[in-house]
Amino acid sequence: MTIWMLDETHDPQTESWVSSANRVSCDFALQNLPYGVAAAGDAAKPVIVVAIGDQALNLSACAQEGLLDRLFGADARSILCRDDLNALMARSPAEWRALRLWLHRALRAGSEMQSSIEGFLLPIESLEMRIPARIGDYTDFYCSVEHATNVGRLFRPDNPLLPNFKSLPVGYHGRASSIVVSNSPVRRPNGQIRVDGDIVFAPSRMLDYELELGAFIGGGKNDTGVHPLPEARERLFGVCLVNDWSARDIQAWEYQPLGPFLSKSFATTISPWVVTMDALAPFRVAARERLADDPALLDYLADKDEAGGGALNVDLTVHLQSAAMRKKGEAPLTVTRANAAGLYWTFAQMITHHMSNGCPVLPGDLIASGTISGETPGSQGCLLELTRRGAEPLDLGNGESRSFLQDGDEIVLEGRCEREGFRAIGFGECRGAVLPASDWS
Amino acid sequence: MTIWMLDETHDPQTESWVSSANRVSCDFALQNLPYGVAAAGDAAKPVIVVAIGDQALNLSACAQEGLLDRLFGADARSILCRDDLNALMARSPAEWRALRLWLHRALRAGSEMQSSIEGFLLPIESLEMRIPARIGDYTDFYCSVEHATNVGRLFRPDNPLLPNFKSLPVGYHGRASSIVVSNSPVRRPNGQIRVDGDIVFAPSRMLDYELELGAFIGGGKNDTGVHPLPEARERLFGVCLVNDWSARDIQAWEYQPLGPFLSKSFATTISPWVVTMDALAPFRVAARERLADDPALLDYLADKDEAGGGALNVDLTVHLQSAAMRKKGEAPLTVTRANAAGLYWTFAQMITHHMSNGCPVLPGDLIASGTISGETPGSQGCLLELTRRGAEPLDLGNGESRSFLQDGDEIVLEGRCEREGFRAIGFGECRGAVLPASDWS
Repeated sequence: MTIWMLDETHDPQTESWVSSANRVSCDFALQNLPYGVAAAGDAAKPVIVVAIGDQALNLSACAQEGLLDRLFGADARSILCRDDLNALMARSPAEWRALRLWLHRALRAGSEMQSSIEGFLLPIESLEMRIPARIGDYTDFYCSVEHATNVGRLFRPDNPLLPNFKSLPVGYHGRASSIVVSNSPVRRPNGQIRVDGDIVFAPSRMLDYELELGAFIGGGKNDTGVHPLPEARERLFGVCLVNDWSARDIQAWEYQPLGPFLSKSFATTISPWVVTMDALAPFRVAARERLADDPALLDYLADKDEAGGGALNVDLTVHLQSAAMRKKGEAPLTVTRANAAGLYWTFAQMITHHMSNGCPVLPGDLIASGTISGETPGSQGCLLELTRRGAEPLDLGNGESRSFLQDGDEIVLEGRCEREGFRAIGFGECRGAVLPASDWS
Repeated sequence: MTIWMLDETHDPQTESWVSSANRVSCDFALQNLPYGVAAAGDAAKPVIVVAIGDQALNLSACAQEGLLDRLFGADARSILCRDDLNALMARSPAEWRALRLWLHRALRAGSEMQSSIEGFLLPIESLEMRIPARIGDYTDFYCSVEHATNVGRLFRPDNPLLPNFKSLPVGYHGRASSIVVSNSPVRRPNGQIRVDGDIVFAPSRMLDYELELGAFIGGGKNDTGVHPLPEARERLFGVCLVNDWSARDIQAWEYQPLGPFLSKSFATTISPWVVTMDALAPFRVAARERLADDPALLDYLADKDEAGGGALNVDLTVHLQSAAMRKKGEAPLTVTRANAAGLYWTFAQMITHHMSNGCPVLPGDLIASGTISGETPGSQGCLLELTRRGAEPLDLGNGESRSFLQDGDEIVLEGRCEREGFRAIGFGECRGAVLPASDWS
């Protein structure tokens, strides 16, 4: 078991010489150390950075200076002096841990390395964040039994959950080219929708967000299809937030028999910081219990790891700010509060299933959880569920209501991990505002 | 209208100084000039090549020598001295035509360029062909009304064709990482399948081929979503053969509600030669007529081009050779004979629809037609249809029969265009043999 071990990097007492990292509310504590890719100003070539408090350490510059030679030898520059994380993701879990340990020791209070790296700190607010990896393929799963049940109930009240849901992690191939990073505007898609019984080509009237977690894949290429779950789990590099924007009216008309297509591929927003599995080690919890009448779990999906569960205890929130709220300086409204621990399938199960047919899964690929919904009111991860397909509009509390998203609405996803005895860490923001549809007329 | 114009490159009388190109049966006549990427020997760096007869012109070497400077100026080497066609695909249709004209004049009999380029010819049989482009995203459509009806009838006898089929080109995102080039072995996938009423994890028992055409996308990135059909059509660079291998038993269990996933993503085989839209210009035919009771075509999908239709008259065949046939030296059996002209949707409609929601479609992306089936017996493009889901096994004529593919079976797709008054051209082969499943036990 190379990943998810607790070690000195998780010690909650250790502080950083970057003082902003020591604030209790800070997402990017010394115990987090998420990776990203950023440009400092328009003209600058993007580099690999590590968030610490309100600063980002230019890791590419550290490697260029030879500071990582002891870890990666002659490969240090080819791994780290670039504008994506793919080469780092392609290394082994042991190397990921070694780099995390180096960063921890370099950034902790009293570090003798402070003087040699403090010149490589950049204020995060000065950075233009980029997509952290070249995402070859993007797969979206459907792992929340509450989401699947809520959505299924809208269409099949007597039989909401399809029979395969508890036998395998249902998933589909997404569109890699339409993934954008937080703060990118999202244009409302045009498409074929049903209006008053007729099919017309028009701007979607049922634009929705979807709250998800995404896992970036690391490790080598598989070519045999034989990857037992513990081995597949070691392909997990880290996690980000995902807003899988969806046009429900386009989806309803197009999706039979091959699944969602243009209802999803106009945009998927991800948060820029990749929180590593090692940073998430303290927040690992037992996977959701299977019920007595659930189908037996097939062997290849069984997680026999005695050391702990494969689920992640991440508190997730979705905030909506309308154009009117923004104009009046009103704070966004929190519309969803959920937790990722309740997913029916774990990321290790998703990737094992994904590779079980021999599918090449490559470093930099992204797999997302599907919409994360809970059981309680307000824990549904999309408006389709929250408003029962628009039938019960959401009161925004300022005189406005929403069945689905309006132009100018801005959606922000946030994620945070807390556990007694450990330092809390967070994911930063996954933000996007809706632009009006393009004019085809 | 920049693409699909007839010009001197289509003159059937012109022969090449590469004499093998002048044989009537040759796929790669002077009028074809398809592009590929190949390595000459294991250690060699792959280069861009153009097929002519049984030879391939090393176009990268021509560019390196400066022979293309007059066409592309300082960019010639960055476009052509590389191991993929993406940079060439990213240029304009006018530049594609100019390069085709240069190749035609260089390779035609009597060309004064013969002496300067004949040293750059390589025998095709000495080459190891590669995937011709870095395929960022792969989309598979579902454009044959016969295929959709035949498959639908197996599951919904009274209502085989779904209501959206004639309103939009149904499609789904495929898996780019599992695309392999002709001659790559294809391993039978393991997966969840139903056996005697139980769901088990086992090698697929219903492995199938699917006969398709694929179009490589060229041109610039779209970011507005507004691309009328004539403009979208100019994004079509060229066409190859596609075998979208499918595991029908995995598909039947996994596909609700998000569509095919692991039943497809173990392998998709493409032919190595990209036959350009310009080479296909003489074989352009009117798109399939819409019936009086078909739904009205929405404006954005209407092809108002007066110059001719957007369908392609390509004769397609599928050949099956079992291990027993190969051992005895018996020729493959032709199991499918179809033609691409009967597709309900054209490639221009597919790409227009694909971009209509603002989805970024990039040079090197691949869109496939879906299984191509005709109306007559033996014109069905997959075994699912030919054998009615195995109920009527196919007699191979040597004592063997097939409901679905067996280990050791080799499938070869071929495509050929013929028209009175023009030189016939072909696609070469799309070949793959089935290996036994990996052992998970």
